[in-house]
Amino acid sequence: MKQWILSSRPQGAARASDFELVETPIPKIEKNQVLLKTQYLGVAPVMLRYMTNETEFERDLAIGDVMHGRGVGLVMESKNPRFEPGDVVHTKLGWREYAVIDDDPYYLTVPMRQTDLPWSYGAGALGFNGYTAVLGARDIGQIKPGDRVLVSGAAGGVGSHVGFIAKALGASQVIGVAGGPTKCQLLIDRLGYDAAIDYKSEDIPRALAKHFPKGIDVFFDNVGGELLDNALALINRRARIVICGRISEYLIAREDYHRFRNIYRIGFKDAKMEGFFIYDHLDKVADFESTMAQWIREGAVSPLEDIMQGLDTMPAALISLYEGTNSGIRSIQIDPVADTRHLAASS
Amino acid sequence: MKQWILSSRPQGAARASDFELVETPIPKIEKNQVLLKTQYLGVAPVMLRYMTNETEFERDLAIGDVMHGRGVGLVMESKNPRFEPGDVVHTKLGWREYAVIDDDPYYLTVPMRQTDLPWSYGAGALGFNGYTAVLGARDIGQIKPGDRVLVSGAAGGVGSHVGFIAKALGASQVIGVAGGPTKCQLLIDRLGYDAAIDYKSEDIPRALAKHFPKGIDVFFDNVGGELLDNALALINRRARIVICGRISEYLIAREDYHRFRNIYRIGFKDAKMEGFFIYDHLDKVADFESTMAQWIREGAVSPLEDIMQGLDTMPAALISLYEGTNSGIRSIQIDPVADTRHLAASS
Repeated sequence: MKQWILSSRPQGAARASDFELVETPIPKIEKNQVLLKTQYLGVAPVMLRYMTNETEFERDLAIGDVMHGRGVGLVMESKNPRFEPGDVVHTKLGWREYAVIDDDPYYLTVPMRQTDLPWSYGAGALGFNGYTAVLGARDIGQIKPGDRVLVSGAAGGVGSHVGFIAKALGASQVIGVAGGPTKCQLLIDRLGYDAAIDYKSEDIPRALAKHFPKGIDVFFDNVGGELLDNALALINRRARIVICGRISEYLIAREDYHRFRNIYRIGFKDAKMEGFFIYDHLDKVADFESTMAQWIREGAVSPLEDIMQGLDTMPAALISLYEGTNSGIRSIQIDPVADTRHLAASS
Repeated sequence: MKQWILSSRPQGAARASDFELVETPIPKIEKNQVLLKTQYLGVAPVMLRYMTNETEFERDLAIGDVMHGRGVGLVMESKNPRFEPGDVVHTKLGWREYAVIDDDPYYLTVPMRQTDLPWSYGAGALGFNGYTAVLGARDIGQIKPGDRVLVSGAAGGVGSHVGFIAKALGASQVIGVAGGPTKCQLLIDRLGYDAAIDYKSEDIPRALAKHFPKGIDVFFDNVGGELLDNALALINRRARIVICGRISEYLIAREDYHRFRNIYRIGFKDAKMEGFFIYDHLDKVADFESTMAQWIREGAVSPLEDIMQGLDTMPAALISLYEGTNSGIRSIQIDPVADTRHLAASS
């Protein structure tokens, strides 16, 4: 089997040379362990920070360690009574073709119960990306009928679900921010948004004022920085600002972070700004999965998947996230017959 | 009877000449109205903004209108079946010796059920100041056992209750910020705080670092601006920042507001920053009153009242709030025999 290890720590953006592909035997399992064959792996901007040990949520990586990554695994062998061969889970597989995991809560292993839907959804709509979108929009953002909603990073792994979810929750208007005309058109044509703002070509304060003459009730933010400050200028009373990500700040030094002018509006408007992380809400995983699956079956949510092929492409799949070229859920199919298995399972 | 009217709009700080004391007949009541004799009136920093029509919560004041103000009233006559003579309420009396009110929800009239406790508490611990402290500390701040809590404006109308409440909710450490050695000593000796930071003489970042080597779990903020930014630098994971007031910004131009460096920590620490206003939580008024009354009876909360005498002193009572000389709840006894009535009622 093949796996990707960390070969050097990125300085700023990651480079291909920070990763090395190595061969290793398929591991044997012991008591309480399962052997998983990796079907799909997800990539997300936060992974760059795994490489520099800057998150509090992942184990520190030494040079030579297998890269962290969640994805969908098929149980091949099991010495754990909770799993049997043929089960599908999403868990912390790492960037490798096979993985052995045990009951350590570190892995946050979630059985997939909706295996008649595409398994790739376990790295997207029915995995932590989708759960994050439900949690942020419904529980943190408390989107309710009639709300006017702004979403940044709207074409991204989480944002590509939020437009759909906001509409499903009754929002009267959902505007997405993305970069470039292609993505902006996609927001409207494919991702359920009413309109789009192109941050690369438009004047953001002017565009926000145009789209929100009656103000913003909910801002689902994946970007942070100046865009967040501009949105604060337009929030309504009791607005909810959902801090999901801060991609604008992940590659710059702290002293270069934006200085906010409009924080006074949190108090002035009795608004809420809240960061959150899916790992703190795992008690609701079954609810997130069934809610999302129902929306998918009803057609209220139509996941846009950006599936690349093969373990070899992992570094490029991650690095290009920062170039802003992806739309929807970026995942990588590792097992070439994963879709066959899915089709076999659903026939 | 006498009443205070707005005679000119303040430019920056209010001056005595912005108010005029006038005589007027005691009004007659009509159907569904009650005549209240004003017992106590409260003053709060936000009242300056009533004078310039800068809040969304109070009716705009024209020059010549009676100043807005809540306080405790004794029902003298009633043509409203909900009230009878002898009832005590807190409501929007205005700055006058007698007031007529009806069932208009604008008045937010709350019957006082704990009239064996001092009636002045209806302008303090058992009025909207106290309710605000309970709501902010318990419901918005979700203070729980073991939390490390910071409170700014700790000697003020709301803050003077928050130290007690935080302790009652199990906080392991409650530090107050106030101005000057007298107030800081009062925080420790009288208001339940474990320690105090004097913003007038101490270096705030250094003092915060000294008192919070393990970080801040809850910040109950009445000040805003740079102090808030400094506190953000030390927040723990899932911290709650309760935005109750922003007195540092009420007297300065918007372009002079502090520019925040540490907003990224809301997302980085999955924290929550939330503004709130008691008017949005009036469904819980009975709970706030009974909770606070029980804490008072148990000795967990010991309200510090700063009671001035007579309607004539109202402008000075408000203006001096901005000079930072008051501690505890500032209220003004309007009816010279209010305490007698209270003593008679409780004997």
